Amino acid sequence: MKISHIEHVGIAVSSLDDAIPFYEKTFGLKCYAIEEVPDQKVRTAFFKVGATKIELLEGTSDDSPITRFIEKRGEGVNHIAFAVEDGVGNALNEADKKGIRTIDKEPRTGAEGLRIAFLHPKSTHGVLTELCENPKITK
Amino acid sequence: MKISHIEHVGIAVSSLDDAIPFYEKTFGLKCYAIEEVPDQKVRTAFFKVGATKIELLEGTSDDSPITRFIEKRGEGVNHIAFAVEDGVGNALNEADKKGIRTIDKEPRTGAEGLRIAFLHPKSTHGVLTELCENPKITK
Repeated sequence: MKISHIEHVGIAVSSLDDAIPFYEKTFGLKCYAIEEVPDQKVRTAFFKVGATKIELLEGTSDDSPITRFIEKRGEGVNHIAFAVEDGVGNALNEADKKGIRTIDKEPRTGAEGLRIAFLHPKSTHGVLTELCENPKITK
Repeated sequence: MKISHIEHVGIAVSSLDDAIPFYEKTFGLKCYAIEEVPDQKVRTAFFKVGATKIELLEGTSDDSPITRFIEKRGEGVNHIAFAVEDGVGNALNEADKKGIRTIDKEPRTGAEGLRIAFLHPKSTHGVLTELCENPKITK
């Protein structure tokens, strides 16, 4: 697969209401969008940092993956999303053929309307890895 | 402080010998440098991903922060490094004045010869955060 850049870094937080002003006041970053993604049971907040984004994630239910992540490990980095140039479906197939355990069997729509798919951290040296369509190429 | 971009994402791995070929074969990224940083008791391997880098970190002793991180949480994302435009010392002072707990009291030299300083994850919603000089500005 061809990765163009890190599309975003996903950070699990207990409360967007606490974490958004923290990122704005501490680092001078500006939250440009808040979006709920019911499919993933999260509310997200985005900040642009150069060509990459910080995505803060708050779980919206007790069985949200983000809620469970925080219960187990506390707040912190949840995943890295790589922007792929050759289509998320192709990249996912390639990963599967290389023996990588995939969480998604086919791409689905994530935050900001982008096509995404996740690779399992047990197959990727502990990093929950998202493959994400490159918004510059496909939009 | 003014952050220009994410300079790198640091990932703790048990073995660079295992993780470097994994990143090269799975994601088509190319390791362009391996460096030991005795001060931090780590060996690092760097990959360029757009304007950002992936830094794989392997502990070089039992009391390395990376070795302890992996013992506690397993392999995974260890830290995010923001490139600051107004000097690491200034950014560190600003964080300190804002009540952020800092690990370093003054900047020190990290991998690739860059001036760096760390903020404590207990003050930053669980993310070990590195402030890093912007190599494009100062080199």
